[in-house]
Amino acid sequence: MTQNIVFDRIGGPDVLRLADMPLPEPGPGEVTVDLLAVGVNRSDVAFRSGKYLVQPKLPCGLGVEGAGIVNTVGPRVNGLAPGDRVSILPAFMPGGRYATYARSGVFPADCLIGLPDSVDNLTGSAIWVSYLTAWGALVEIGGIQPGDFVLISAASSSVGLSAIQIVNAVGAIPIATTRTGAKVSALEGAGAVHVIATEEQDVETSIRAITGDKGLTLAFDAIAGRFAERLVPCMAEEGTIVFYGGLSDEPTLFDRRPIIRKGISFTGFTVWQILRRPDRRERGQRFVEAGLANGTLNPVIDRVFRFQDVEDAHRYMESNTQFGKILLEISAA
Amino acid sequence: MTQNIVFDRIGGPDVLRLADMPLPEPGPGEVTVDLLAVGVNRSDVAFRSGKYLVQPKLPCGLGVEGAGIVNTVGPRVNGLAPGDRVSILPAFMPGGRYATYARSGVFPADCLIGLPDSVDNLTGSAIWVSYLTAWGALVEIGGIQPGDFVLISAASSSVGLSAIQIVNAVGAIPIATTRTGAKVSALEGAGAVHVIATEEQDVETSIRAITGDKGLTLAFDAIAGRFAERLVPCMAEEGTIVFYGGLSDEPTLFDRRPIIRKGISFTGFTVWQILRRPDRRERGQRFVEAGLANGTLNPVIDRVFRFQDVEDAHRYMESNTQFGKILLEISAA
Repeated sequence: MTQNIVFDRIGGPDVLRLADMPLPEPGPGEVTVDLLAVGVNRSDVAFRSGKYLVQPKLPCGLGVEGAGIVNTVGPRVNGLAPGDRVSILPAFMPGGRYATYARSGVFPADCLIGLPDSVDNLTGSAIWVSYLTAWGALVEIGGIQPGDFVLISAASSSVGLSAIQIVNAVGAIPIATTRTGAKVSALEGAGAVHVIATEEQDVETSIRAITGDKGLTLAFDAIAGRFAERLVPCMAEEGTIVFYGGLSDEPTLFDRRPIIRKGISFTGFTVWQILRRPDRRERGQRFVEAGLANGTLNPVIDRVFRFQDVEDAHRYMESNTQFGKILLEISAA
Repeated sequence: MTQNIVFDRIGGPDVLRLADMPLPEPGPGEVTVDLLAVGVNRSDVAFRSGKYLVQPKLPCGLGVEGAGIVNTVGPRVNGLAPGDRVSILPAFMPGGRYATYARSGVFPADCLIGLPDSVDNLTGSAIWVSYLTAWGALVEIGGIQPGDFVLISAASSSVGLSAIQIVNAVGAIPIATTRTGAKVSALEGAGAVHVIATEEQDVETSIRAITGDKGLTLAFDAIAGRFAERLVPCMAEEGTIVFYGGLSDEPTLFDRRPIIRKGISFTGFTVWQILRRPDRRERGQRFVEAGLANGTLNPVIDRVFRFQDVEDAHRYMESNTQFGKILLEISAA
């Protein structure tokens, strides 16, 4: 047996409940992991609320990343043994056989990455979603180059903070946006070369003052709606706005003339574009491992909740007051 | 002296008039060309109507492509001599010093490309705008590959027909759209492997039937508005809709969720992205010259109007009944 966090209906954080569940034997190519830490992602909240890209089949488990210790190894698995500390790379979609909001779970062996001693369990559960999302959009799809101005909206999220680190690592210039002045100095401390408080400053004027005539090569945007429309005049020739979320819930109008005139692109992105292609996943994994090793990448952990306090963790995510990653920690039952 | 077609106010085809004008001496790097044929482009009509990407400074000349004979060569020009037959590559924006709706005009020498004996003057004035627009969007920016399904809207335009030829030349599969059944067999004859009459067939159902699960890698779209929105469900993973016009005049909504889920891009494009970058212009020129030489590219000329009948030529363009290029022919005054 194990204990999972499940939900029986679409709804707010209160639909989450702990449930005792049978723990299946690992099948071919699968491994059972005893989880010690779980990454809480915006997509978990969206999935629970029925606002994700796919809909849950109820009752449903949750979670795509975590870290723990290998318990049992199924048939046809090489290179993993009971006792190994591993991080779970989220190469599976939510709502299926695999879920990390669990004391123990089976996972595909090729999603498990050994954790070096220098990386603790909490950090190990805070790496892959945010860094692969940011790396994929900025480097693999976006192709940012040294000297490029790159705007990062909702910059205090774990993905936003990861993006700031990656933009700096590449030698480009991160411009972070945040709604109010409250997080400005924290964002500067986290590596943002420029910070714009969008409810207190005019976005277009601020970006023009920062980038001059050059404009933004890429905007990595989690907001969409009118916010994204306001970025269009700030883009460089052939600049790209990469949309990976829609916090605004407003529609976005594609205003043809200025976009055609400058050859601008609007591009949708999910981390699945990286995770389902082995060549990309491999490149991303190497980039992130190198950055963790050389210190250019450092996961920012905001708050750690107890496993049983998952409802509070989701409520905190929805407050949008966080600065970095939200985690669940699992202690022995 | 020369004779130019000019307009003194924004308006319909009737604002165009013939005007006797002084012919300036060619400056450094410039050449005077006696024009024999002029390409009439959709952008000329949009410019005259005040609907182009830039606004005319009145009174204003018109035209960015043509063919003719070198008359006078200015200082610091190499490789061109009086009597040379040349095609004018439209590497200048409309509304400035250079205009091809003229019996004679000065042009930058680096916009002049010698015409081989095998290419007549009319054909020589029908090459560059349409082929470089289609090549730039499809090959240079779009990166289409053999086997890709490529949708071409407004396919009976000179750019649309050029796109069909280029998609075939690359080994991809052109799907042409046209409003009614009237031009279907002509489009098939022009190389379209599939043709969809958008007012008579359901666009989404037709594309699904043609592409199966694969979907469209690229849609090369001159319409925008609701037409483009309907293409979104038909796109392949990471497919791109390249917008190079907006015949519909409707706004286009960027519907975030399906676009993020599949990593789709909306990309604006103008031929100036090719023309103002020497490396791209060079690649495009070589692609087109090779295609003309080996017969995979063949400009489709629809109707040739007399120079003095430019008003009729613009009216015909606005009728949207053409099939291929509209030209003006200039005979000795």
